[in-house]
Amino acid sequence: MAAIDINCDLGEGFGIYRAAPEEDIFPLITSANIACGFHAGDAHTMRKAVELCVRHGVALGAHPGTPDLQGFGRRPLEMTAREIEDCVLYQIGALESFARAAGTRIRHVKPHGWIYNEAAANWEMAVAVGRAVRASSADLILFGLSGSRSIDAARQLGLACAREAFIDRSYEPDGSLTPRKVPGALILDPAQAAKQAVGLAVSGRVQCRGGSLLEIAVDTLCVHGDNPAVLDILALVRQRLTEKGVDLRAVSG
Amino acid sequence: MAAIDINCDLGEGFGIYRAAPEEDIFPLITSANIACGFHAGDAHTMRKAVELCVRHGVALGAHPGTPDLQGFGRRPLEMTAREIEDCVLYQIGALESFARAAGTRIRHVKPHGWIYNEAAANWEMAVAVGRAVRASSADLILFGLSGSRSIDAARQLGLACAREAFIDRSYEPDGSLTPRKVPGALILDPAQAAKQAVGLAVSGRVQCRGGSLLEIAVDTLCVHGDNPAVLDILALVRQRLTEKGVDLRAVSG
Amino acid sequence: MAAIDINCDLGEGFGIYRAAPEEDIFPLITSANIACGFHAGDAHTMRKAVELCVRHGVALGAHPGTPDLQGFGRRPLEMTAREIEDCVLYQIGALESFARAAGTRIRHVKPHGWIYNEAAANWEMAVAVGRAVRASSADLILFGLSGSRSIDAARQLGLACAREAFIDRSYEPDGSLTPRKVPGALILDPAQAAKQAVGLAVSGRVQCRGGSLLEIAVDTLCVHGDNPAVLDILALVRQRLTEKGVDLRAVSG
Amino acid sequence: MAAIDINCDLGEGFGIYRAAPEEDIFPLITSANIACGFHAGDAHTMRKAVELCVRHGVALGAHPGTPDLQGFGRRPLEMTAREIEDCVLYQIGALESFARAAGTRIRHVKPHGWIYNEAAANWEMAVAVGRAVRASSADLILFGLSGSRSIDAARQLGLACAREAFIDRSYEPDGSLTPRKVPGALILDPAQAAKQAVGLAVSGRVQCRGGSLLEIAVDTLCVHGDNPAVLDILALVRQRLTEKGVDLRAVSG
Repeated sequence: MAAIDINCDLGEGFGIYRAAPEEDIFPLITSANIACGFHAGDAHTMRKAVELCVRHGVALGAHPGTPDLQGFGRRPLEMTAREIEDCVLYQIGALESFARAAGTRIRHVKPHGWIYNEAAANWEMAVAVGRAVRASSADLILFGLSGSRSIDAARQLGLACAREAFIDRSYEPDGSLTPRKVPGALILDPAQAAKQAVGLAVSGRVQCRGGSLLEIAVDTLCVHGDNPAVLDILALVRQRLTEKGVDLRAVSG
Repeated sequence: MAAIDINCDLGEGFGIYRAAPEEDIFPLITSANIACGFHAGDAHTMRKAVELCVRHGVALGAHPGTPDLQGFGRRPLEMTAREIEDCVLYQIGALESFARAAGTRIRHVKPHGWIYNEAAANWEMAVAVGRAVRASSADLILFGLSGSRSIDAARQLGLACAREAFIDRSYEPDGSLTPRKVPGALILDPAQAAKQAVGLAVSGRVQCRGGSLLEIAVDTLCVHGDNPAVLDILALVRQRLTEKGVDLRAVSG
Repeated sequence: MAAIDINCDLGEGFGIYRAAPEEDIFPLITSANIACGFHAGDAHTMRKAVELCVRHGVALGAHPGTPDLQGFGRRPLEMTAREIEDCVLYQIGALESFARAAGTRIRHVKPHGWIYNEAAANWEMAVAVGRAVRASSADLILFGLSGSRSIDAARQLGLACAREAFIDRSYEPDGSLTPRKVPGALILDPAQAAKQAVGLAVSGRVQCRGGSLLEIAVDTLCVHGDNPAVLDILALVRQRLTEKGVDLRAVSG
Repeated sequence: MAAIDINCDLGEGFGIYRAAPEEDIFPLITSANIACGFHAGDAHTMRKAVELCVRHGVALGAHPGTPDLQGFGRRPLEMTAREIEDCVLYQIGALESFARAAGTRIRHVKPHGWIYNEAAANWEMAVAVGRAVRASSADLILFGLSGSRSIDAARQLGLACAREAFIDRSYEPDGSLTPRKVPGALILDPAQAAKQAVGLAVSGRVQCRGGSLLEIAVDTLCVHGDNPAVLDILALVRQRLTEKGVDLRAVSG
């Protein structure tokens, strides 16, 4: 029986700010990537997010970003490979403390925004991220863009990894994500998102912007917590995947 | 044979800024308390400080502060006990990552500035700090102001603790430190600092501002890395303590 | 004919975060207090907020807070009177740039959160805020809690001032605001808020928690942009005040 | 009689951190570029720096950078032209407040680090900076790298500008500054710096790395406040320029 993981970036508030309806999302996903205080998140959002992971049986992951709260970790920010490695190491450790205090462990690491993109495209950055993950624990699973250098670097470093594809982001024919500034880059229609999720999970295929089909090997499907339609999308995605006999469960290392 | 630990707050730079001549201080101390990114420090200063601990055989400690870089963690900032606990938990975890990557472990935790002062004076805050330390690892040693609630709370929580006194800060007759704004609060004269260090380590006594003698039980002596005379003070303190037959070594748990 | 100003704290997002439905609030108020980058706001939110002020003919005010984004400027943070003065001066100037670029001027200054509370209660802080406002421009109107030291200090410094009361915050019998952690401190019911607004604007009276009546001289009424019911409250408040023949217009200096 | 301006970036501390021996530098320069709270500086360093400008008769300039304290505003950080414009506008306004409070005015604006470099190389960024300066005041003088797009854009926008060259940075044959990571990029030898200063001020020529001569039109010479030899360099530069009959005075608009 086929199985797929559904992950979501959560704990991405800061201070009084909230980025997603977290309490409603946790029951609908199987893995959560928790912001660690750099691009978003603070010590208090992290504690709460870890507790929600435990309560809902969701696999806990670290979601490290650049130290750029104003840009939400999405802006290109030049850092050396060593600085990226230190950055990721720091954030995994910070989250691990809350995991330990809640009687659980981090299961996976998924870099955020600019680091995610850089690690996907740039071998040196992919290795920097992989090294930080491995130094934290050899048991951690690295989440990376399917088909990207992130995955290659993780494997070369002996790390388990999960190939990620997106439920609510449009793809370009070259396999990259449509840039956020392009209209339609973020999929808001639950039916379209569910169709993309089923295609990815069942056939490993997605229809790109322009109409061509792309083959993508997928272990985990991502939906964005700040997508205004996230709850409707998740409800329909879960229903459609279950109808197709796909088991929803966290990636195992 | 008598023994004493000499500790110093280090890794307190940020970005291009430096707060102390770190490379020269490490060889002269037995325990280092490393800033963890809130009141000072960043991922890169932390990696370097941990490497210096390993190289010089100095016991590694976390030095968590409030999220107040501008005030260097010294300004009173109202936080709940839970917020303090989360804050400390976060920072210990972040440093633990660098320790693990360098093949070592954190040995102790010493709160910084306002958290240190609050934990010394306020039972609820002392317990919050102690709980965060215990949740990180039951083996950690908590450094706290000798005779303060920090120490009482650590003991009640079953934590090992080290009673701290200061080499280069003047004491008030009530056992508190002379506030930094008072002239003479920071001792700059190596001879005076060495006399205070020997009095504390050998007899458990310090001469207060005003001249009276105070009894202080001491396991670890602190010197400030940003004291302009820190290197001369450390050289003379080590010489005088050695002459008195006091062994310099890190606190054991 | 009676007249009253309705003010709201706006531009309180940061980066990707939003704190209020700003576009919908601007048409309903007569004065806006714009966050200036310390407790909230950034250069881009400020430009947009100033443009919205101009478009909707809303009087533009600076809303300076403490440098505490994580605590949204509400946490007590110990700063000297001089530091508060510098803080306020900095933020007024930053906003003035956007006003100038948009062809307008700042009309008033209303301190935020902890600074507002400190200036209301503490003469030295009230003078620090007043001095910063006067140094920026002698024509600025200082908004302060009605009956507080803020108002006294502004007058003594020769500044025009506006006595503020709150539409959606409960009052204690001593005239202070019910602390936010107390249930009912924030009024969510539009009818209750409208009744309080009319009482304040028409009779200068408010019913306190416990039931007693309090007399409050009022020039400007504040509603909170992050009140979940803000739009319904503003609609009903405007309707009721208009029915009572109260003219809604910005305070004049 | 020939005249030249000597400028230095100052007020670049933050909180407890200091970046330069400011009190000793002010008497030796004719223009100061004051950090405005983004890449460095805070409200209190700004007030002090403005007071030092007034006391020493030094022309006051704003020195706006990216919101990247950790990278000191030197790291490439992707921002749109509009974001750069808002950023610069914000910081000029903030400093103008302290100027007004001290009874003076800002005379010039010199962008810092990454913004300076981007504006020198990229027309859109040069225009963004120029627009922010002009919106602040049409009387401001824009400092930019001699021969760069900064200068061209300033002129096209109708702004007065000052062409800058560096006393203590090595030049590449193409007229760019030798990157900081290259050994010798920062000139530490006062004799070499003084020779470069005289060549620039008297003949408009500098000897590049490799030995070739480069012609550079110069209105203002920059020395770096965090250059460890800054005081010796300034003393010798002033002496040599005076011997050559060059008058040291601020740029006039």
